[in-house]
Amino acid sequence: MRNLVAHKSCFLVLLLLLFTSQFSSATKKTLNRDQPCKRFVLYFHDILFGGNDVANATSAAVANETGLGNFKFGKLFVFDDPMTKDKNYLSPAVARAQGFYFYDMKSDYNAWFAYTLVFNSTKLKGTLNIMGADIMAAQTRDLSIVGGTGDFFMARGIATFMTDTFQGAKYFRVKMDIKLYECY
Amino acid sequence: MRNLVAHKSCFLVLLLLLFTSQFSSATKKTLNRDQPCKRFVLYFHDILFGGNDVANATSAAVANETGLGNFKFGKLFVFDDPMTKDKNYLSPAVARAQGFYFYDMKSDYNAWFAYTLVFNSTKLKGTLNIMGADIMAAQTRDLSIVGGTGDFFMARGIATFMTDTFQGAKYFRVKMDIKLYECY
Amino acid sequence: MRNLVAHKSCFLVLLLLLFTSQFSSATKKTLNRDQPCKRFVLYFHDILFGGNDVANATSAAVANETGLGNFKFGKLFVFDDPMTKDKNYLSPAVARAQGFYFYDMKSDYNAWFAYTLVFNSTKLKGTLNIMGADIMAAQTRDLSIVGGTGDFFMARGIATFMTDTFQGAKYFRVKMDIKLYECY
Repeated sequence: MRNLVAHKSCFLVLLLLLFTSQFSSATKKTLNRDQPCKRFVLYFHDILFGGNDVANATSAAVANETGLGNFKFGKLFVFDDPMTKDKNYLSPAVARAQGFYFYDMKSDYNAWFAYTLVFNSTKLKGTLNIMGADIMAAQTRDLSIVGGTGDFFMARGIATFMTDTFQGAKYFRVKMDIKLYECY
Repeated sequence: MRNLVAHKSCFLVLLLLLFTSQFSSATKKTLNRDQPCKRFVLYFHDILFGGNDVANATSAAVANETGLGNFKFGKLFVFDDPMTKDKNYLSPAVARAQGFYFYDMKSDYNAWFAYTLVFNSTKLKGTLNIMGADIMAAQTRDLSIVGGTGDFFMARGIATFMTDTFQGAKYFRVKMDIKLYECY
Repeated sequence: MRNLVAHKSCFLVLLLLLFTSQFSSATKKTLNRDQPCKRFVLYFHDILFGGNDVANATSAAVANETGLGNFKFGKLFVFDDPMTKDKNYLSPAVARAQGFYFYDMKSDYNAWFAYTLVFNSTKLKGTLNIMGADIMAAQTRDLSIVGGTGDFFMARGIATFMTDTFQGAKYFRVKMDIKLYECY
């Protein structure tokens, strides 16, 4: 009788283990949108070069608009922009955003970005590579974080853009909510 | 004697479980090329801006060819192209493809693309970000889907291009076979 | 007594299995920087088009510098460059690197790259897609390998750049250490 009990309880533990391991493997496959493994917010400051403001400017147009519509379709900009923790562009830059964007809609302002966040402090070294559509008509829009290096080795995630201010062509600021879902 | 049997059968179940779990972890690591977790085909329509056809055009040249060879090396185009389910460019667009491409070979036509598929219907909202070489001499060529957002949260996969028609510089259509291998 | 021993040893094996499986799932989540699943070194050769050297040139400027600083800020180049196993640019190309780069710093030379390594030999067919900042002031810098196709199906990894030689604007060579951490 007792060895039958032993057998049964052993079998129950096995079943439990089986269910537990299957449950945990399912969890592993499901990334939870609400639980990034790392998250931080930074502000992106873009000051467009006007011709004689080299000291302040952080971006410059490298191709002209094409005339397809009235919203600068095709105009392309290269930038090396500071990223700060608050809205003040004079605050210490915790990273640089290096890359480009261009306008790409004939009926409204709309942009497309590809860039690298470069971190180079004593606390944090590495990069995050980001690309995607900046659907400017939407209050928030998601771009893909497609890779990372250094302290962000092999990371992936989502960068959520939110326009914070837009002062004509001269200056704009975007709040970037960086959420990593793959951390190593 | 009976408890020995109990022990043995318990051990056998354990072995079975061990093999099962190792087999399933191996499967998890091996993505199967023939079994994408999501797949659909869309047609990409590109109508190049000629100067006075704003209403119809969906793309425009933003940089001229460089003279390196006779195949428009370096000529760069920004596009906001409709994606349809069939070959008719007047069919309802189920997505927009927003991005750029350029020619990059001196001995033949060959291109490089980076763009975002933007879905914004009641059924489907989100983006897929794609980049890669468009080896035009090959009948089909694979580009990388490097990230996704919204309903395509964190997706990865392959976009297989197949030129469907090419009408001079004015209009071309590419069949894009979208295969996702990471779905969340 | 004996069935109690049977029960106990069975339980111990179960515990062992449990720890083993948890340990192996932790390993799966932790990619090891020192153990790429594939690694190789290639040299990237860039010969800039000067106007009348079509036969030799492999890249060309498609946008001019902007005047923001003295380091060619915004100047953009498209390339179709040979990748060789050794430093000799006349060695057989084992791949082509097709894509673009631009300068993006006003106080020093610094660049940003996005390109595809195209392999098309009897031994190896497929592509690797790469993007990231080329922080030229650093001795080595890491870019992200964000996707792959063909024999590199769904691969991800890191490409480490190291400038090998820089002969003015005419020719430069970069050692690229390709490390894949996701192989399928």
